[in-house]
Amino acid sequence: MAVGIGDDCAVLEPTPGTRLVVTTDLLLEDVHFRRRWAGPADIGWKSLAVNLSDIAAMGGQPRWVLVALACPPGTTAADADAFYTAALGLADEHGVALVGGDTSLSPAGWLVNVTLLGEAVTPLLRAGARAGDVIAVTGDLGASAAGLAVLEHPEMASRLDAAARDEVSRRHLRPAARVKEGRWLAAAGGVTAMIDLSDGLTKDLGHVLEESGGGAEVRVDHLPVAAATRAAAAALGADALAWATGGGEDYELLLTCAATQWPGLADGLARATGTRLTAIGRVVAGPPGLRLVDAAGAVVPATPGFEHFAAGRAR
Amino acid sequence: MAVGIGDDCAVLEPTPGTRLVVTTDLLLEDVHFRRRWAGPADIGWKSLAVNLSDIAAMGGQPRWVLVALACPPGTTAADADAFYTAALGLADEHGVALVGGDTSLSPAGWLVNVTLLGEAVTPLLRAGARAGDVIAVTGDLGASAAGLAVLEHPEMASRLDAAARDEVSRRHLRPAARVKEGRWLAAAGGVTAMIDLSDGLTKDLGHVLEESGGGAEVRVDHLPVAAATRAAAAALGADALAWATGGGEDYELLLTCAATQWPGLADGLARATGTRLTAIGRVVAGPPGLRLVDAAGAVVPATPGFEHFAAGRAR
Repeated sequence: MAVGIGDDCAVLEPTPGTRLVVTTDLLLEDVHFRRRWAGPADIGWKSLAVNLSDIAAMGGQPRWVLVALACPPGTTAADADAFYTAALGLADEHGVALVGGDTSLSPAGWLVNVTLLGEAVTPLLRAGARAGDVIAVTGDLGASAAGLAVLEHPEMASRLDAAARDEVSRRHLRPAARVKEGRWLAAAGGVTAMIDLSDGLTKDLGHVLEESGGGAEVRVDHLPVAAATRAAAAALGADALAWATGGGEDYELLLTCAATQWPGLADGLARATGTRLTAIGRVVAGPPGLRLVDAAGAVVPATPGFEHFAAGRAR
Repeated sequence: MAVGIGDDCAVLEPTPGTRLVVTTDLLLEDVHFRRRWAGPADIGWKSLAVNLSDIAAMGGQPRWVLVALACPPGTTAADADAFYTAALGLADEHGVALVGGDTSLSPAGWLVNVTLLGEAVTPLLRAGARAGDVIAVTGDLGASAAGLAVLEHPEMASRLDAAARDEVSRRHLRPAARVKEGRWLAAAGGVTAMIDLSDGLTKDLGHVLEESGGGAEVRVDHLPVAAATRAAAAALGADALAWATGGGEDYELLLTCAATQWPGLADGLARATGTRLTAIGRVVAGPPGLRLVDAAGAVVPATPGFEHFAAGRAR
């Protein structure tokens, strides 16, 4: 970096031979988070993490960040410090330098805009999946939705053991961005499309199918769901499958690859990063569209699960 | 540009041999603008213009923009369209492509975050001014503050003729960013420091002195002030000098250069762009600090002007 904060612009020196990958996210209190359960450090962490995840989904190396924060009158210096300590701590873990942005007064709640810049030699896109490709995800699904439900319904969550409650809450408030996994997958070759799971499996796989063409068949019995997520669903009378397919904010990576590449990618990623890849289905020829099927090949309707969850949230 | 809106990140191809210049600004209703007089198109225009001006101040070429907009419930599609038409129209005029961002609901008023990326071969910084350097500004000063006063006090502004009222209002609502001037000055060579006037002459020249070292002597009788600005000051009982030195948001460029370079730069810029440069003072040896002096060399206190203006605004 040539010049950081303090001039009219940051002046950056891109690495020759790389492309620049850029993402921005505006997070608003009572739209994207609630201060009732998200502290300043949680907001700082997550506002960085969601952008890191976008760079991860391209297989890029995040490098520079601009953070604009607006806080309501009465915000203490300790609160602002907690925000920046968490945000810049996470940035630092990923080798990302703060190069711009500012802090101002907000007439309403907390507002954060993060712009993250990274570099990638060969960015992985949403377009590129082909019929026959394996669909796979990193880690497990539905934990963030479980955490949100637990945070929203503390009276019901008390039925859940403390370790599971803490695990799913943390997954919602402090999601991990799969940066090293994304970089490894991009460098390994063989991945035909990649996206991060911010809106939920159904929507995000839908984005890949829109860009790539083709449909998908996803085996619900293959979806990786953590024990804590299942325990939370049982305690709250919710549907873990609905969380795993529609919950969103897991920030795992979803990728497609030729079936011949699958064993090497799954083994290689586990060896290189310790992160498990799970095959959850196949890209199929035909119109874009996602079918959830069970082990017998019967179609599982996704909608009842969502409605159940939505009704649970509205109580 | 390789990939724009629609993937997890925009993928950009920086021009080899250039540095990247990046700036971001968060504009909030009732903090940075008021909907009472700023329509959606004004907000769109200005949110782009203030960022273009930061790139101009580096002598850069703006190239890519990310726009995050949040509007309150009840915002019409026509209002959102007006915002984007103005913002992207101005972007287009400068050869800037929209590559990211989104629109969301705001729990409070209008919120805009713009991140603008540009390229510069040799960015001009705030540091670099030397004792003896000429201090110069493009265009004229105080018109934006005059426009704000006119918009805030329509009852008093009715004393002003319509052409002058329109001119200063437009200068406040639709500031021009000096992009082609900044590029020409960077390419010409000889500019030792540059900044755009967003916070006002006193503060922004102060930033240059902080970064460069040294003090400054500014001749108040040399400050370029438009006839419409003077007329607005007379009609509102305000102080045009206070507007010119402390008003802010003029988005003119302030630069320093060796005295030997001055005639060539002033003539060259006028020939190349039609924009006038005015020499307003000199960098002097000694501690950082700005002295306003009159034609006789007597110090003019800046504070009474500000207080007068502040009292005028508070009425």
